[in-house]
Amino acid sequence: MNRPAVTIAIGPADPPPTLIEKAVVGAGATLSDLGEARGLIWAGDAGEFPDELPAGVEWVQLPAAGVEDWFAAGVIARHPGVRFTSAAGAFAASVAEHALMLLLAGVRYLPEHLRASDWRQQDFFPHVGTLRGKTVTIVGAGGIGRALIPMLVPLGAHIIAVNRSGRPVTGPGIPSSVETISADHLGRVWPHTDHVVIAAPATPATRHLVGADELARLKPSSWIINVARGSLIDTDALVAALASGAIGGAGLDVTYPEPLPAGHPLWSLPNAIVTPHDSNPPQLRLAAFADHVEANVSRFLEGRPLLAPIDPARGY
Amino acid sequence: MNRPAVTIAIGPADPPPTLIEKAVVGAGATLSDLGEARGLIWAGDAGEFPDELPAGVEWVQLPAAGVEDWFAAGVIARHPGVRFTSAAGAFAASVAEHALMLLLAGVRYLPEHLRASDWRQQDFFPHVGTLRGKTVTIVGAGGIGRALIPMLVPLGAHIIAVNRSGRPVTGPGIPSSVETISADHLGRVWPHTDHVVIAAPATPATRHLVGADELARLKPSSWIINVARGSLIDTDALVAALASGAIGGAGLDVTYPEPLPAGHPLWSLPNAIVTPHDSNPPQLRLAAFADHVEANVSRFLEGRPLLAPIDPARGY
Repeated sequence: MNRPAVTIAIGPADPPPTLIEKAVVGAGATLSDLGEARGLIWAGDAGEFPDELPAGVEWVQLPAAGVEDWFAAGVIARHPGVRFTSAAGAFAASVAEHALMLLLAGVRYLPEHLRASDWRQQDFFPHVGTLRGKTVTIVGAGGIGRALIPMLVPLGAHIIAVNRSGRPVTGPGIPSSVETISADHLGRVWPHTDHVVIAAPATPATRHLVGADELARLKPSSWIINVARGSLIDTDALVAALASGAIGGAGLDVTYPEPLPAGHPLWSLPNAIVTPHDSNPPQLRLAAFADHVEANVSRFLEGRPLLAPIDPARGY
Repeated sequence: MNRPAVTIAIGPADPPPTLIEKAVVGAGATLSDLGEARGLIWAGDAGEFPDELPAGVEWVQLPAAGVEDWFAAGVIARHPGVRFTSAAGAFAASVAEHALMLLLAGVRYLPEHLRASDWRQQDFFPHVGTLRGKTVTIVGAGGIGRALIPMLVPLGAHIIAVNRSGRPVTGPGIPSSVETISADHLGRVWPHTDHVVIAAPATPATRHLVGADELARLKPSSWIINVARGSLIDTDALVAALASGAIGGAGLDVTYPEPLPAGHPLWSLPNAIVTPHDSNPPQLRLAAFADHVEANVSRFLEGRPLLAPIDPARGY
């Protein structure tokens, strides 16, 4: 009943990162030199990638979510018989965790708590909210949105996911109770949702997706969280809505302009939380890549479809 | 195939709270006067409870988690043929959500972010942590602990639950990957855990459960969250550990002394978050009670065991 060992090489670091070695071995594969490898986990840059690969290499895992550099360097085109996968989706969990943190901190009134220097329990009571029974609309159902949904479900939130097609969002930990609507119908959502999380790509169509009109239709208790790109929100309209109390608050890991200049009103508004685009900091990326490697090595061993396959024709 | 309607009365409010009416009807029962009711949902105080109940009443749902007042008023003893249930566990979810908020805010360095007035992304990067792959020890596996576990699981945390028996903690949304240890072995946990959430009752045995020795064995990145009672932590030892950087920080919804006096060092330490015991504020309690009522009316209709049955002999 012995199955031949599946051999995987790691490049180019010497020695390769321990976390990546652990991931490969943890998935059940055997580490080898590139000459004997069926798979290659690449932890370096596009410029360092070998010109030629041994004939035994069937699959290459790249370390980035966006692989424009590898296409530009000709890496994909040079190896037409090899399957490439990217790390798309691997870094979404950290950003989703950050979005959850910002939303919970807002809803539970943490910024004002942190400014307090005495107990005043009765003053705080009316301002402490919950996500239980509340509707959270997640605009964008890519990796971040799909990672955030399972984090919100156990808190008892009702979730509306917004994607382009309106086809029900599916994935691990996403229950059928999640409502999916198409971006065309987003206008109907604003008066009904309690909170909004922006996790959609920045395109000409999503610029100022949230402007004065949308903010005016939210509730005075609504928090809006942005972990996508600053340009999706009209910053001036947001500042006005925060200053007037038209909405409850904003939690922003991204801003427009970015970096947000010193002296900008968002730094001093009491109901704005700004984090400097640090929801996915460098020191967390290696561990996230290792998780992705372990999942893909398992899939490779078992002959299942790999995560984040790169389509040479599509360019990503 | 008609099933006879199960009739439930609500007392004593006139009119009764809409949320409770909705819960009863939502579970599939019919609202009725007390005279025709098989069940009674009591939304008032112990002192207002009727001296006698019509013979048709089989079950009474009380609105409190702790029912000492009802025992003291003789309500339980006066109705020996009636099943009573409390609201034990109903309010745990809000406290668990608060604990999650405090832990995430700490791990992701939110207090320092809120003090910032410029971007400084490179300064923040190294301090933003994650719960993914980290070990969170929850001391106390009662309602709050068991509500918190399913909230932490989708974040990728490894969970150690500590209870008296060491028997595996079970419940809705609690996977078998949760490690349970008995309180006798808690001493082994401190050097291995990343973070600690205190959710155990205050008893003579749990006073200063966390003191200087325990804090010294945690990591410089560890956060300790207390949503139970202030007396479980030695406050002076905690202040010393926070001031020296021996631990990462503390998120406290309860303190000793409580209320925490103005001028206490916990108000000004940059790595302490204090909320004034407001994790379960009055305005959230009715909605939580309604959820509990809906669950118990469903169980009553289906003849399943009721949540939080009161044992007249045990006194709770």
